[in-house]
Amino acid sequence: MRDDLLTLRGMRNILPREKAKINKIESEIRRLFKVYGFKEVETPTIEPLELFELKSGEEIRHRMYRFTDLGGRNVVLRPEVTASVAKLVVQEMRSMPLPIKIGYILNVFRYDEPQHGRYREFKQGGFEIFGSKSPLADAEILEVSSRLMDSLGIGNYYVKIGHEGVLRAILTRFGVEENIQDRVLGLIDKEKLSEAFEILASLQKGVEVTELIKRLWEIKSRNPAEALRKAEAVVKDIPEAIEQLDNLREIIELAQASGVGEVIVDMGFARGLDYYTGMIFEVYVKDLRIAVGGGGRYDKLTGILGWDIPAVGCAPGIDRLSLVLNDDIVPKDDIICLIISMVKEGDLLASRLAGMMRARGIPTMVDPTRRDLNKALSYASKRGFKYVAIIGSKEVENKVVTLKDMEAGSQEELKPEQIVEKLSQYSI
Amino acid sequence: MRDDLLTLRGMRNILPREKAKINKIESEIRRLFKVYGFKEVETPTIEPLELFELKSGEEIRHRMYRFTDLGGRNVVLRPEVTASVAKLVVQEMRSMPLPIKIGYILNVFRYDEPQHGRYREFKQGGFEIFGSKSPLADAEILEVSSRLMDSLGIGNYYVKIGHEGVLRAILTRFGVEENIQDRVLGLIDKEKLSEAFEILASLQKGVEVTELIKRLWEIKSRNPAEALRKAEAVVKDIPEAIEQLDNLREIIELAQASGVGEVIVDMGFARGLDYYTGMIFEVYVKDLRIAVGGGGRYDKLTGILGWDIPAVGCAPGIDRLSLVLNDDIVPKDDIICLIISMVKEGDLLASRLAGMMRARGIPTMVDPTRRDLNKALSYASKRGFKYVAIIGSKEVENKVVTLKDMEAGSQEELKPEQIVEKLSQYSI
Repeated sequence: MRDDLLTLRGMRNILPREKAKINKIESEIRRLFKVYGFKEVETPTIEPLELFELKSGEEIRHRMYRFTDLGGRNVVLRPEVTASVAKLVVQEMRSMPLPIKIGYILNVFRYDEPQHGRYREFKQGGFEIFGSKSPLADAEILEVSSRLMDSLGIGNYYVKIGHEGVLRAILTRFGVEENIQDRVLGLIDKEKLSEAFEILASLQKGVEVTELIKRLWEIKSRNPAEALRKAEAVVKDIPEAIEQLDNLREIIELAQASGVGEVIVDMGFARGLDYYTGMIFEVYVKDLRIAVGGGGRYDKLTGILGWDIPAVGCAPGIDRLSLVLNDDIVPKDDIICLIISMVKEGDLLASRLAGMMRARGIPTMVDPTRRDLNKALSYASKRGFKYVAIIGSKEVENKVVTLKDMEAGSQEELKPEQIVEKLSQYSI
Repeated sequence: MRDDLLTLRGMRNILPREKAKINKIESEIRRLFKVYGFKEVETPTIEPLELFELKSGEEIRHRMYRFTDLGGRNVVLRPEVTASVAKLVVQEMRSMPLPIKIGYILNVFRYDEPQHGRYREFKQGGFEIFGSKSPLADAEILEVSSRLMDSLGIGNYYVKIGHEGVLRAILTRFGVEENIQDRVLGLIDKEKLSEAFEILASLQKGVEVTELIKRLWEIKSRNPAEALRKAEAVVKDIPEAIEQLDNLREIIELAQASGVGEVIVDMGFARGLDYYTGMIFEVYVKDLRIAVGGGGRYDKLTGILGWDIPAVGCAPGIDRLSLVLNDDIVPKDDIICLIISMVKEGDLLASRLAGMMRARGIPTMVDPTRRDLNKALSYASKRGFKYVAIIGSKEVENKVVTLKDMEAGSQEELKPEQIVEKLSQYSI
């Protein structure tokens, strides 16, 4: 193939086996939408540039697919979905009773350096609850993230939980402005702690703020009560931070009551998106040490868009989950019967039988190759088809079809109606 | 909301009711993938510009979303899927036995003037058969297009069938080059007949070619045999065209044997995509006179990409189908039980019960608003929830939950385990 036609770097063709895994994950996410009462929506792939300049974080802003459309507008391919869904809710749902629970499954685009399992176009599912400040809502988001892992049969995971509200309360107490907070938390997210501290030092707010952040950063524990106790000791003089810690405690207790999986509290944990204001989390698969999803509370995003309501949500990474998931969840080849017309005069009967079978929902293929019967049979056997329906001159004459049971090796002559009846147990 | 943040012109938010309809159509298409043995794939949204400059047709080329990416490549958002899928097959499937049957459900992008029901981003399903010249393959594509309508309960449709092979055979006979053929057929597609004839006249190939095309153009009939007879009379001196007509006759006979719906043969019918070489068709809903899908044979496209195999396929338009489809295929609200925690001390029990219910797959919501009980009950009644589980101080003390049957009006105190058992019949 000409080089200039090849699939672009960082993009990929998703082949049938992988697509079947992705479909399996998506249908599980859709089942959870129903079990938890989330309503699925879809936002446009192409959005105004300005939407993602609000609060998506510097990291993402620099890696957006942006261009000018034929109408001269500056547009981007959505680099994440939460801002789009928040806009949808503000634009279209202001008359609905709160809380509003929204789900989505959409592709997102980031011009990142491609790596194993990381593409420039990838898939996110999402669960978002708008209009509730209650820790019950945060806990539900943790619960559904955990439930998705359980229902996909991925047992070896843990949920890392932190709270940007605690970090922001400290920074606010020492007079650090919100846009600087965003930058500091962004650096902490990328584990660039010393750069974050340099910024704080340059503000000349004293060494205490750096000291407090550093001490929180060191608190990581599988025992949430212990982590929270230690954190309280660190921020004991900042009532706003204590309040945020109480919020985190309540969320974790509720989430654990609802059956969330193993929890690790990480007090120095931050996420790269600027809109988080409270509890944040990521779900990790243990051995692989990769995050397969995450989320958190973002109480100020919809306010910027014109409707000031609190919100909390999460976004399972569908491609990441597919990487982790065992191949054996992909169902086997579903075709039950291959129809082979050995002579041209048999084609009409083959078409009629095929039409009857498919109208009944019985997975059926017609072999259009007119190859040697033995070759056709060996193809059917290799693909694991249960039956082969053979139409030769004799069958055309007698208006019957020879149905061969590939497992038993037996065969019988039947009318088309009889074949449909016999195989109707396989209809889908 | 700030004007510059609003959803772009021609783009749209798909709200829950519409999304549920689209999901219903998509799952029906996926069921047909299995019944007919098509394997689903996904191609990248972003492709090299050159791919769609090959054979997509002038009409589409002028309305593509094209831009330069951060790496300096000229790229486009796919304006149609067939070229991408053909590339996928050539790049990734050369070692597979033929025929290769591929399905897809993907978004496409065209910078068209927005109209009612026409957006700049829309959804196509697709069924493509690679590697078979047999009329059985063409007939199968007609059959599956028709089956989709039947299985969605859309009865009032017809299939308009033509054959670009017949038109191209005539043009070739009179020495019209392929790229001029593409332009002429493109104009015929847009019913700009006189412009098409002007081009032919300018070539000075004589008046006969125009005359033949004009006479074919007039042949439209619900009786395929009649239409084919008339067409044969027109092209009787051009054996290559007669051969193409025989091909069309065979395809229609096979498709009718397999149960395809009402057929109208239209000998002057052409489609705007340059890659068609044989049978072409569109599916119309009668009263609305809108095409909800179409397709045809394109035997030369993969050859340009480096693997010369014949192909035939179709692309149902999912948004168009949704316009036609009755709203009542959307399932009702699925939540079975609303859990109301009236006191803060009840939240843990509410979380525990919710977790147990959802782990069992019973659609359950927790009311996070702590509103007045009567308001919560009236909300539950309005949404049509079957049960409400109430947790107040008394319930917390006795470790029970009051379950109210919203239809019967009755209520009873139960342990969480008993509620899960009682409602497990609703699990999904």
